[in-house]
Amino acid sequence: MALVVQKYGGSSFETPDAIMLVAKRIIDTYDSCNDVVVVVSAKTGVTNRLIALTHELCISPEGPDYDLVIATGEQTVVGLLTLCLNNMGYKATSYLGWQVPVITDSNHGRASITSVEPGRIQKDLKKGAIVVVAGFQGISDKGRVTTLGRGGSDVTAVALADVLGADICEIFTDLDGIYTADPTICKEARKIDKISYDEMLELASLGEQALQVRALEYAKYHNVTLCVRSQFNRNAGTLVTTEDEDMERIIVSGIVYDKNEAKIAVMGVPDKPGIAAKILTALADADISVDMIVQNVSQAGLADVTFSISKSDLELARKITNAIAAEIHAKEVIADEKISKISIVGLGMRNHAGVAARMFSALAFNNINIQMISTSEIKVAVAIEEKYTELAVRVLHETFGLSY
Amino acid sequence: MALVVQKYGGSSFETPDAIMLVAKRIIDTYDSCNDVVVVVSAKTGVTNRLIALTHELCISPEGPDYDLVIATGEQTVVGLLTLCLNNMGYKATSYLGWQVPVITDSNHGRASITSVEPGRIQKDLKKGAIVVVAGFQGISDKGRVTTLGRGGSDVTAVALADVLGADICEIFTDLDGIYTADPTICKEARKIDKISYDEMLELASLGEQALQVRALEYAKYHNVTLCVRSQFNRNAGTLVTTEDEDMERIIVSGIVYDKNEAKIAVMGVPDKPGIAAKILTALADADISVDMIVQNVSQAGLADVTFSISKSDLELARKITNAIAAEIHAKEVIADEKISKISIVGLGMRNHAGVAARMFSALAFNNINIQMISTSEIKVAVAIEEKYTELAVRVLHETFGLSY
Repeated sequence: MALVVQKYGGSSFETPDAIMLVAKRIIDTYDSCNDVVVVVSAKTGVTNRLIALTHELCISPEGPDYDLVIATGEQTVVGLLTLCLNNMGYKATSYLGWQVPVITDSNHGRASITSVEPGRIQKDLKKGAIVVVAGFQGISDKGRVTTLGRGGSDVTAVALADVLGADICEIFTDLDGIYTADPTICKEARKIDKISYDEMLELASLGEQALQVRALEYAKYHNVTLCVRSQFNRNAGTLVTTEDEDMERIIVSGIVYDKNEAKIAVMGVPDKPGIAAKILTALADADISVDMIVQNVSQAGLADVTFSISKSDLELARKITNAIAAEIHAKEVIADEKISKISIVGLGMRNHAGVAARMFSALAFNNINIQMISTSEIKVAVAIEEKYTELAVRVLHETFGLSY
Repeated sequence: MALVVQKYGGSSFETPDAIMLVAKRIIDTYDSCNDVVVVVSAKTGVTNRLIALTHELCISPEGPDYDLVIATGEQTVVGLLTLCLNNMGYKATSYLGWQVPVITDSNHGRASITSVEPGRIQKDLKKGAIVVVAGFQGISDKGRVTTLGRGGSDVTAVALADVLGADICEIFTDLDGIYTADPTICKEARKIDKISYDEMLELASLGEQALQVRALEYAKYHNVTLCVRSQFNRNAGTLVTTEDEDMERIIVSGIVYDKNEAKIAVMGVPDKPGIAAKILTALADADISVDMIVQNVSQAGLADVTFSISKSDLELARKITNAIAAEIHAKEVIADEKISKISIVGLGMRNHAGVAARMFSALAFNNINIQMISTSEIKVAVAIEEKYTELAVRVLHETFGLSY
């Protein structure tokens, strides 16, 4: 008998029929001699509607009362799914965050889990019950309801899998698992059977949507094996787990793109120490995080500083940069929304030289110009013109032999 | 400094502007040197929508998970109102039922409060905070969320007023208070300034909608002074309190009608002991409560048994009655939906003879035939043809001198 933690997202609860399908899948898992703990998100769109309600009353709603409102989304789903399981003749017990309890800090709206008490759930499992837990929420040591922020239900699932010593934590999504590239733009993309935490972390932070970075970090740190699989079929999915020798032999595991970045170039800056720092400090003060940065000397004594940021930060970043550009007598500030970031990720890069060179050559051969580069031990990311995104993904997928 | 408990109903929270109006009223009360504890209902219609969701998944949803779903309505409002108060610069603290805690039995869907712990709320009040509590919900000794059933928020308000030793428990409604008759059909109706628990209990059980019987019983038992007043203006409202000599001098305090009853007559029943009991037992077994009952001998050895029930029970009651009528060889069963119950209520009836006679004469003088009668120490109720409802109310209002 295994202990399985299953996490279902908002799209699994959009209609009564969808809820019943989830219930049937849970029952199938239970009837195959498993203990089952289910973690649920709010129905798609509900959390955003609740957030909108709070914004109708306050300019910047936050704190325990904000959390009280938005925690109702998961509460409704927990109740409905448990009712449904009981109605199908199975013993199921519902838990809100405070009932588990999932204890968090008091950082309302984006709280971190500090501990989870497994006792009550373990008792229910021993009695043969299916346990259904509201994701995304906890309770602070002050007795207030907290929420964990975007992707919080995944974190709840991983934390429960950890303290309960689950054999696996299944994350259900719209796709069959993690792919070597986005299958909607690259027909040759194939599902990855097994991937390491580190690779998955890179993919997630570079644009892969299936898993949230926070949940992955938690899983890696606590060594919780994840399985990303489809809510629509019974295919095996992708295992996310500790790395092994097989994984290290693969140079590139996956290719991701992110169209959500924009670029700002400050041209003709006096090439003196501290200029780039000045710009970046001002952006950091405004809570804007900068992704890639390039500085190159253009003419005698003058440099260009180019950096990428999230598209949503572009307006504010441009204002701040313009002010500093005037101050430091830069020649020009150019903003460009039409960029895209393409990244290749693979454990094998550690031991294989020349991976970046192969990537750049393949792009150059297809006349795709590279605007910025950033690398880590297991990834190479480049910024290119947005219109080349799909082409670049297909070229790299071919180059690194991911299609077969 | 007084301690005021205020309860706002669902129609007070229909729009962001309405919520802000409630917040302003609370602040006005607080700024007039009062401690304020606010109890809220869910937004109008929300609880019914949540109940509908559960019915899409189960034929007869019930138990702790049903309560989990429908308790979200009040939770959302508590969060929003508290956010709003904080946003207006006032310190406000939110409480769900389990956070107070409001402890109930495990009778999910219609739980009764067994105790309320005032400690946490008292601490917040001492710190100068406004306290906002979700009505309608509590926690069982098994740690499960419970709901109190229809009108539960009024019960929460009264229970809090009791344990906190509040000076007054204000119940906000759409009307200025309790009227001598429904002002929409009787122009001469006037607001009652003060009424006893017993009279108010009779009025509520006879059709007056402003207060629920359960909350009134709780208030009477624990001696909590209520004030029913308008959410739209600052008029004084109606005090519901222990009886005094002034009240006893008033023979009739109010007149209510209820169009929600139907009548079944079983004609030509053998006039033997136990026949009426047989019918009533069968109805009770089907959970149908009978209001008025009349039995009269019509012909030699034959009797008619007539009783009134809620309109919604008519179909089932008719079936049950037909079956028994066949069994006991009754001649005929006649059902009539077109009846109405008119009641007069007043403490003064105890000491004044002839009140019923005056009522019957007035109705007879206006050609309104009385079909059934029931009385208590402080009320007389009659069933009449439905079309005479408004006329009867106006006639009795005039007869008992309520207009001036």
